[in-house]
Amino acid sequence: MVEFEPVMLAPIAGALALAFAGYLTFKILRQSPGTPQMRELSGTIYRGAMIFLNKEYLVMVVYAVIVAIILALVVNYQTATAFTVGAFFSALAGNVGVRVATKSNARTAAAAKRSIGRGLMVGFSSGAVMGMCVVGLGILGVSIFYYLFGDPQIIVGFGFGASSIALFARVGGGIYTKSADMGADLVGKIEARIPEDDPRNPAVIADNVGDNVGDVAGMGADLFESYVGSIIAAMVIGFTGVTIGGVALGQTDVVVLPMLLAATGIFCSIVATFFVRVGKGAGIKTLHAALNKGVFGSAILMAIASFFLIWYTVGYLEIFYAMLAGLIAGIVIGLSAEYYTENRFSPVQSIAYSSQTGPATNIISGFSVGMISTLVPIIAIGAAILLAHHFVGLYGIAIAAVGMLSTLGMTLAADTYGPVADNAAGIAEMSGMGQTVRKRAERLDAVGNTTAAIGKGFAIGSAALTALALFAAYIQRVGITPEKLSITNPPVIAGLFIGGMLTFLFCALTMRAVGRGASLVVSEVRRQFRTIPGIMERKAKPDYDKCISISTSAALRNMAPPAALAIVTPIAVGLIPFLGPEALGGMLAGAIVTGLLLAITLANAGGAWDNAKKYIEEGRLGGKGSETHAASVIGDTVGDPFKDTSGPSLNILIKLMSMAALLFVPLFI
Amino acid sequence: MVEFEPVMLAPIAGALALAFAGYLTFKILRQSPGTPQMRELSGTIYRGAMIFLNKEYLVMVVYAVIVAIILALVVNYQTATAFTVGAFFSALAGNVGVRVATKSNARTAAAAKRSIGRGLMVGFSSGAVMGMCVVGLGILGVSIFYYLFGDPQIIVGFGFGASSIALFARVGGGIYTKSADMGADLVGKIEARIPEDDPRNPAVIADNVGDNVGDVAGMGADLFESYVGSIIAAMVIGFTGVTIGGVALGQTDVVVLPMLLAATGIFCSIVATFFVRVGKGAGIKTLHAALNKGVFGSAILMAIASFFLIWYTVGYLEIFYAMLAGLIAGIVIGLSAEYYTENRFSPVQSIAYSSQTGPATNIISGFSVGMISTLVPIIAIGAAILLAHHFVGLYGIAIAAVGMLSTLGMTLAADTYGPVADNAAGIAEMSGMGQTVRKRAERLDAVGNTTAAIGKGFAIGSAALTALALFAAYIQRVGITPEKLSITNPPVIAGLFIGGMLTFLFCALTMRAVGRGASLVVSEVRRQFRTIPGIMERKAKPDYDKCISISTSAALRNMAPPAALAIVTPIAVGLIPFLGPEALGGMLAGAIVTGLLLAITLANAGGAWDNAKKYIEEGRLGGKGSETHAASVIGDTVGDPFKDTSGPSLNILIKLMSMAALLFVPLFI
Repeated sequence: MVEFEPVMLAPIAGALALAFAGYLTFKILRQSPGTPQMRELSGTIYRGAMIFLNKEYLVMVVYAVIVAIILALVVNYQTATAFTVGAFFSALAGNVGVRVATKSNARTAAAAKRSIGRGLMVGFSSGAVMGMCVVGLGILGVSIFYYLFGDPQIIVGFGFGASSIALFARVGGGIYTKSADMGADLVGKIEARIPEDDPRNPAVIADNVGDNVGDVAGMGADLFESYVGSIIAAMVIGFTGVTIGGVALGQTDVVVLPMLLAATGIFCSIVATFFVRVGKGAGIKTLHAALNKGVFGSAILMAIASFFLIWYTVGYLEIFYAMLAGLIAGIVIGLSAEYYTENRFSPVQSIAYSSQTGPATNIISGFSVGMISTLVPIIAIGAAILLAHHFVGLYGIAIAAVGMLSTLGMTLAADTYGPVADNAAGIAEMSGMGQTVRKRAERLDAVGNTTAAIGKGFAIGSAALTALALFAAYIQRVGITPEKLSITNPPVIAGLFIGGMLTFLFCALTMRAVGRGASLVVSEVRRQFRTIPGIMERKAKPDYDKCISISTSAALRNMAPPAALAIVTPIAVGLIPFLGPEALGGMLAGAIVTGLLLAITLANAGGAWDNAKKYIEEGRLGGKGSETHAASVIGDTVGDPFKDTSGPSLNILIKLMSMAALLFVPLFI
Repeated sequence: MVEFEPVMLAPIAGALALAFAGYLTFKILRQSPGTPQMRELSGTIYRGAMIFLNKEYLVMVVYAVIVAIILALVVNYQTATAFTVGAFFSALAGNVGVRVATKSNARTAAAAKRSIGRGLMVGFSSGAVMGMCVVGLGILGVSIFYYLFGDPQIIVGFGFGASSIALFARVGGGIYTKSADMGADLVGKIEARIPEDDPRNPAVIADNVGDNVGDVAGMGADLFESYVGSIIAAMVIGFTGVTIGGVALGQTDVVVLPMLLAATGIFCSIVATFFVRVGKGAGIKTLHAALNKGVFGSAILMAIASFFLIWYTVGYLEIFYAMLAGLIAGIVIGLSAEYYTENRFSPVQSIAYSSQTGPATNIISGFSVGMISTLVPIIAIGAAILLAHHFVGLYGIAIAAVGMLSTLGMTLAADTYGPVADNAAGIAEMSGMGQTVRKRAERLDAVGNTTAAIGKGFAIGSAALTALALFAAYIQRVGITPEKLSITNPPVIAGLFIGGMLTFLFCALTMRAVGRGASLVVSEVRRQFRTIPGIMERKAKPDYDKCISISTSAALRNMAPPAALAIVTPIAVGLIPFLGPEALGGMLAGAIVTGLLLAITLANAGGAWDNAKKYIEEGRLGGKGSETHAASVIGDTVGDPFKDTSGPSLNILIKLMSMAALLFVPLFI
């Protein structure tokens, strides 16, 4: 009989997460999909999302095959296998998430007809499916490869596979969603003066598809990468040995612990999903409180459970403190994002007020809010690094990242709920449901916007910590002496400059891609308004599919240059004579620092502009239709690629480059 | 009899530069100041500038006294003396520069009436006065204190004095100029629809004053700081010893060499001013070529002269290569700024085209141009660092900075010419000079805009290299071992994050200050339009002085928080237990990297938006009055604080923090 070993908790937790996801999906599909019109809208969005994903997969498969061959030749076939499975698992999680999300949008709207609590249930369950698929497949993959090979360095291949898919999903999805969104807004809202989500707008479905491929598949792949990346980094560092107070810990203990922490987090997340409940006629505050109960509940459960876990397995509470530092930093970053992007607080209001003197002051004000919002997250991350390292060295930093991401099953559920509620509100609007239902759907959507903003902050923070952990693992593996990594060593300085510059360049390329995609969509929407008679009178249906296919091809074409930048540069810098592995180290550090700052600025400025517009739309400062409102719409539009394309893509950039550096270490030594 | 020693070249060059400045001033004042109306306008601008400067001096004196006392207590009285003189010299150079500039604007316009070549002569001479005062006072100060004390560390006090004044001049001047400019534009151009530089606008004189206190005094103080900072850094590093190929160079040789290089640069600059000549009826290209002949001519002369200087004094051409690397990097950065901000090239044109879909796409496009424009300067600086260090170690990096700044007398002349020509065009417009003269003045202004953009790029590049040199000097003085400065050491990582974050915060604070100042000016202009009858019909004169005093007090009040941030943070980080001197090192590195990237982005985005607007105003894409033009005006307004307040202020931040770190080393060890 096989004796039970703690490590077996990991695949068990993974299987349980997937089973729970299956159960939730079953429950969702049993809900009514609403009226025929709602079903049709939902179906169009579903098909649009599948068109995009299938075309994207084609690109991914070609890429994956090439990289797998290179890995098999340059590294070894095990790593190549792990890479392929990592890519497949990440794509699978994203695919299931999008499928369920697009099946849930109309069902959420239909459920909201019965009560707002039921609407929340359906929308949140859909988010939980995504959350569970990501953590389930993530931990399964890592633990299987650990079981097969026992060497964490091979599992880096799994992480690199996940990173690669994340790149395509985040960058491609981000370009898609904002090309469609901006294209729809620039003609629809500004030129034709029809409201958001108006079915007469030919780009409206593409916009809704974008919410799914960007915010569901993109966000999911991003956090899948962080999740497995942090676990793998901790395992790689653990493999080279960890000492606390001069005592060397058991190698297996420290290698296995990250997986056990992740498994514990999954159990806590599943339990916490049951905390998310509201009664009938709940307001925004109650809805918000319900979701918070889930997020904070899972974190508290995790803090308690991991205390005992660490106490009974490794026996050193220093590791617990390191984990706790990461867990708390994640919450602080999320709350800070909420403060800077919520209507209720002064930053957003100051943007709304400065819109009174026109779009220019609106832009400047939003931009400065974004920049100021870097203060708290940087202090949180800095403190987490210092504390975690103080207790357990570099391993501590990786454990802090694992801690921050341990309850991902729950945080991602709350996060993915956002775009589902957004779609549900759109469907309620487009299918002409009654006033009450639309109000409910809008309330669900408003709460979703907040969770999405918090989720974005969390994604950024976890990406930075994960990238740092991977960076630490890279440094350990490549074996450069500390004095060569001094910030006075010119290759390191040059590396810092190059890394920082890459994040700016990457941002610019993704922004420009959105600009190009949007202008193609604009031309198409104008063309349809001009050539299809009767659209405005609702007598003729616009050609939604055309806008979908234009956004798709724009996204896929324009994602190549930034993708190439992210993959080629670390390898090139590591190999170029005057630079080499220490410059690569500097480059990673520079990219992580600058990337984190830029990502926070872009995400929070974008979120704040969005909500400043909503603040005015609620009837303040002249309300809808005023000059002030027009100014705020411009800020919101500028913020679109900031918060949904360039900002989130930076998460991928810093992790992918660190992962590539770690993976290709054999080339550099 | 005293034997002639090479080091005496330094004060001689300084005295010569000042004498040459005196001669040029004499020549300018002999020119006709134009019609009574022109004299009156020029006089109002002059008085406005003096009001601002005098109030600013009050703040500076209080600050300087407090810091001098602290320095005398904490460091020593010699350093306190050097600090006071440094502050005084910097303020003096700025004051003379502004006085001459405000005496030259009407004279430039009047001279342009005779011929465009004479207009260029007067405007450029005014710029040359500023250039010569800066380099003359700079080298005099450094060489006098070297003669008095012989210890470079004491001369750091002189640099810190210059840094402090630069902070007030750049930040205060930057807030002033853009509060007035944006305030004037937001009401004048957008609400009242009167043209730029229209005398009916109550804020128009404040705007012209701003050009002088921001672009003349601010820019001058910025480069004064870079100039003395680079020389001092090289001397400090030289003092601790320099070896080339295992051979130790003579201490005095390497300490004195930076001053000799600077002296040589002054001679070359004076000669090169005579290259700037054009015939009658010269077009923009010819004007541009004349200025370029001066800038490139001085660089080529410097390359030749310094080759012989280094060959005959130190004898190691490795130092020459390091200097050359800096000189070339400076030119590359300037040319790159020209490419990204000039009408003739595709980046600006792409912004103009994207204005066709409204302000939002204009903003996104300009922002991405700014970010992409970091690529070339980063490569140039990175290459200069690697090469300079390859040849002579850390000393080489400082020498590269000295090389880049050696011909500052000339580059600053071309640069200061910009605001003088701008004012001249404004006076030509306001005093209703004939069509021909206004066209000539506009042409002079257009060339000035280009030189200003190049000058901005150069100021940024030299600030980064100077800050790096000071950073290297700090590291040498504080004596931390390289392994403690490893980018894997958590205090260093935390420092990198904090330093990067400070630049974002500093940017946000300065932007916000402009927003606040502008909104006060907006209210005042609106009030005057409302309460002073007959302004619009040109029957009553607006109250210019009121707008001047509002901008002044807004600038002085809002400059405190960013100033405090710049001065207090390095000292605090160096003293806080968990952080300390190695975190301070990381902080400086993080601030230099991120600050450079941000500064380039902001300067070039701002310049590109400005010229995209001008591109459309020249009649393209619908020309003035079209929707496309309106969109481009918004981008231009957003760019104002980007390129003239926040961007340039970052130069000061990174240098001042490095200087403070170097100065307060005794506190940390």
